[in-house]
Amino acid sequence: MATKKRILVLGGGFGGVYAARELERILRPSEASISLINQENYWVYQPLLPEVISGLIGLTDVVSPIRQLCPRTELVMREVEKINLEQKFVTVSPGFRARQLEIPFDYLVIALGSISNFCGTPGMVEHVRSFRTVADAISLRNHLIHVLEEAEIEPDRDQRRKLLTFVVAGGGFSGVEVVAELSDFINKAKGNFPRLRAEEARFVLVHAGDRILPEMSEKIALFAQKLLAKRGIEIRLKDRLVGATSEKAQFKSGIEVPSKTIVSSVPSSIPPALHVLPCAKENSRLKVNANLELAGYEGVVWALGDCASIKTLSGKPTPPTAQHATREATTVARNIAAAIRNQPASPFTFEGLGKLGSLGHYSAVAEILGVRISGFPAWLLWRAIYLVKVPSLRQRARIALDWFFVLLFPPDFVQMRLIKERGIARQHFEPGEVVFLQGDLGDNVYVIESGECDVLRDADGKQTHIATLGPGDFFGEMALINDVSRNATIRARTTMNVLLVSKSDFDTLKCCVPAFGDAFRKLAKDRSEANQKAGNTAAAN
Amino acid sequence: MATKKRILVLGGGFGGVYAARELERILRPSEASISLINQENYWVYQPLLPEVISGLIGLTDVVSPIRQLCPRTELVMREVEKINLEQKFVTVSPGFRARQLEIPFDYLVIALGSISNFCGTPGMVEHVRSFRTVADAISLRNHLIHVLEEAEIEPDRDQRRKLLTFVVAGGGFSGVEVVAELSDFINKAKGNFPRLRAEEARFVLVHAGDRILPEMSEKIALFAQKLLAKRGIEIRLKDRLVGATSEKAQFKSGIEVPSKTIVSSVPSSIPPALHVLPCAKENSRLKVNANLELAGYEGVVWALGDCASIKTLSGKPTPPTAQHATREATTVARNIAAAIRNQPASPFTFEGLGKLGSLGHYSAVAEILGVRISGFPAWLLWRAIYLVKVPSLRQRARIALDWFFVLLFPPDFVQMRLIKERGIARQHFEPGEVVFLQGDLGDNVYVIESGECDVLRDADGKQTHIATLGPGDFFGEMALINDVSRNATIRARTTMNVLLVSKSDFDTLKCCVPAFGDAFRKLAKDRSEANQKAGNTAAAN
Repeated sequence: MATKKRILVLGGGFGGVYAARELERILRPSEASISLINQENYWVYQPLLPEVISGLIGLTDVVSPIRQLCPRTELVMREVEKINLEQKFVTVSPGFRARQLEIPFDYLVIALGSISNFCGTPGMVEHVRSFRTVADAISLRNHLIHVLEEAEIEPDRDQRRKLLTFVVAGGGFSGVEVVAELSDFINKAKGNFPRLRAEEARFVLVHAGDRILPEMSEKIALFAQKLLAKRGIEIRLKDRLVGATSEKAQFKSGIEVPSKTIVSSVPSSIPPALHVLPCAKENSRLKVNANLELAGYEGVVWALGDCASIKTLSGKPTPPTAQHATREATTVARNIAAAIRNQPASPFTFEGLGKLGSLGHYSAVAEILGVRISGFPAWLLWRAIYLVKVPSLRQRARIALDWFFVLLFPPDFVQMRLIKERGIARQHFEPGEVVFLQGDLGDNVYVIESGECDVLRDADGKQTHIATLGPGDFFGEMALINDVSRNATIRARTTMNVLLVSKSDFDTLKCCVPAFGDAFRKLAKDRSEANQKAGNTAAAN
Repeated sequence: MATKKRILVLGGGFGGVYAARELERILRPSEASISLINQENYWVYQPLLPEVISGLIGLTDVVSPIRQLCPRTELVMREVEKINLEQKFVTVSPGFRARQLEIPFDYLVIALGSISNFCGTPGMVEHVRSFRTVADAISLRNHLIHVLEEAEIEPDRDQRRKLLTFVVAGGGFSGVEVVAELSDFINKAKGNFPRLRAEEARFVLVHAGDRILPEMSEKIALFAQKLLAKRGIEIRLKDRLVGATSEKAQFKSGIEVPSKTIVSSVPSSIPPALHVLPCAKENSRLKVNANLELAGYEGVVWALGDCASIKTLSGKPTPPTAQHATREATTVARNIAAAIRNQPASPFTFEGLGKLGSLGHYSAVAEILGVRISGFPAWLLWRAIYLVKVPSLRQRARIALDWFFVLLFPPDFVQMRLIKERGIARQHFEPGEVVFLQGDLGDNVYVIESGECDVLRDADGKQTHIATLGPGDFFGEMALINDVSRNATIRARTTMNVLLVSKSDFDTLKCCVPAFGDAFRKLAKDRSEANQKAGNTAAAN
């Protein structure tokens, strides 16, 4: 027998973790070492992630430590930066010390999934939330609570209405589950806010197709549509989200929905490290053969899950579900074992057992082995199947306890804001939108990346146009430097993208980077003089 | 009867929440409205916070929504920015829109607690963690897991030892509970890391006094000391933490402990909004009379909890514990009711029932009504008392379930990294410490705030001194601009403070702030030329 082979698995989702588990099962420790690279040290039970929004499942109960799921696999908790297929090594991101780490392999499994990609759509990166990771789920939950807390103390009716409007883009499984959980949570939590009890919350689900749940049969999809509509969820078909600002969602049909909460389950692409791989792609995914070997690297590299373009025996593309990823993982693990043992490879032959989707509120839809079920029986089935499928006993017990617990006590609405948002953020504005009003508190400096805005001053009941600012210009620094409220209103003149620098970061930069501080101080002086002049002119009028 | 009075409570800890609850109980809705300002929408059950480190208690089970604890109180989820005692209003931080919010009051309750204050000690702000909030606890837990994951893949023995060394400063209740939970967690979680099983972790507790637990009698304290020492925790008495870098803790005795994890439970001061109040202070806290009225504002403003200097009947200062804060809250609420009803006020007379401290691992120490207990009986008593004292039934049930659950399954060690750390951070270096090594991956740009460093280049087995950099100088930008690894080693020449700008923020600033980008580009060009010259010289030697 040859020397011990090194198997490297990239990604800790269903594909990666189940491949490592199957490899541990069928290979002797003397045959191969197994390593797995993942950014987190946990694996996420993705199908139950929407339940984290409403707190049906405890924050940590939806995840399991990878080290416990794959005890014989070496876990490297870093990010994959570069894959060198020719020289057979993978470069990972730095840890505490910025030391470069290169991990060699004999056999490679690529299971890096897909990422949200909002590129090219105005305002999407800044103002639309994706829903893929535990961090996304917790961040959405915290945002929903923030929105409720703000709505409770907001005196303006339109602002309150905007705060209580929620837009979800994409009517597939994921989008439907998110809008269902979201509306359940908001409607329940609202009861704790005395002023909001009588207010109606608005939920909008926008979908490009002519019915939701394209994964299911039409009959089932229509049932789901009716049920969601009955709960007050507006479904907008044959339309899609094409833009967003911090104040509204813009649809293709021209409709604009004022909202502070826009979630998208739609666009996805493979991660950047896979984009640059010198191998064949198919439908923007990695091209593999029937044995799931990467085209051009047969016998050395396998790809599976959402990052690979895989077909079932009948020639249909496999959907991005857990049941397919786990079966692909088994095929990949067996073929690697076959390669090590010089045995023939076998193709992926799974056709899918059925489809299940939760609609929240004790309801679900299912199509299993040709049988359609909906409503409460489907919901029970959905819970039972997903509970049985949890790989760790500990996690299964915790989830069962969580589900039992909410029968006794309603889910709470504690916000888990862990870190103050800081650093440099971006915002997108449409023409006519107000960035801030004269008299507002100053907590950010804005730098214009593209577009223009008007600076307006209110005095003696009259509004004066003071200046128009363009790319590279700053505004908002006066309030920070002099610690007073905003002395003018800023309104976007064109579509405008701005950079936000927080007060604390601004202060730090101003003190420590002389060039930065000087630029701001000069600007503040010029502005101050210009303002004085404008003030005098206004007074003269 | 007069018009309805407005009572405003600042702070949502034990003092604030229990005052609001008592006010709700004794005042009729027609007598007064009650508002409470707190940054978070939840109240933290502080005594159990250390258990979050090891996952004994679920992350969200240590908190309760304030709205459910005080249903009749209006909660304003903002930060207190300014208190105007003369004109009787409080200004709060901005929400979604930067609108200024001023909240008027007739009666004010100040219960803002204390904050960690590391000012004046070199490196403390940057490298020492405080342990006060839920965010601190979760952040510490995540850091511990990160340290274990890094130690597992670290080939260097000294680095690994440093990663597995943990320093806790302050041997009062809080410090002792933190070091106990921390060592429990590390020793248990280590078992999941194949390479760490045989490694010894090191725990150091440093305390200024001549014995730990100054709150307890000597006999009990010595018992606790012996117990912790038996578990392998080093206790350094009559010493204290005087400095820190990212690589080590520095003690007053001159001893230096290489470590990546330094937690302090020691220094505290009142929040900035209270610092600037024009009222009498005592021991750097707000001065109040026996009725807990703020000196100079009797009948209008009350202060309690950790931000007030309060004495028991026997003249001893009250310790910062939950049992005292809740009793002070009752006194304050009754005195406000008395003020509204024109009745006489009554003084604070509570002396304390006893003292309880957990030592982790089924052990605790207690002194109750003069009786001393330690070990397992004290631990049972500790759990029972704290469980009974949880104000919400839901939370009590969850905590009991959590405690029951860990008897069946060991706590997990899932890391909950929610947001990538970004923005501008600071680091502190002592002379001789290396900032980065030639060949490291570049992921930050450094700006020197104070101090100097040497730039060293290794070539052909020889190290050449290229330059000395001082305040205002940058380094590390070459690797980012050209996307290569570091081309030199940077070593601190003196005590040095630097500013870190992350790669992503650096790129953003470079593109969008012309002055910033220009400064860097010029610098990079100069450096590049200088390097070439130095390289030529080195080659010529």
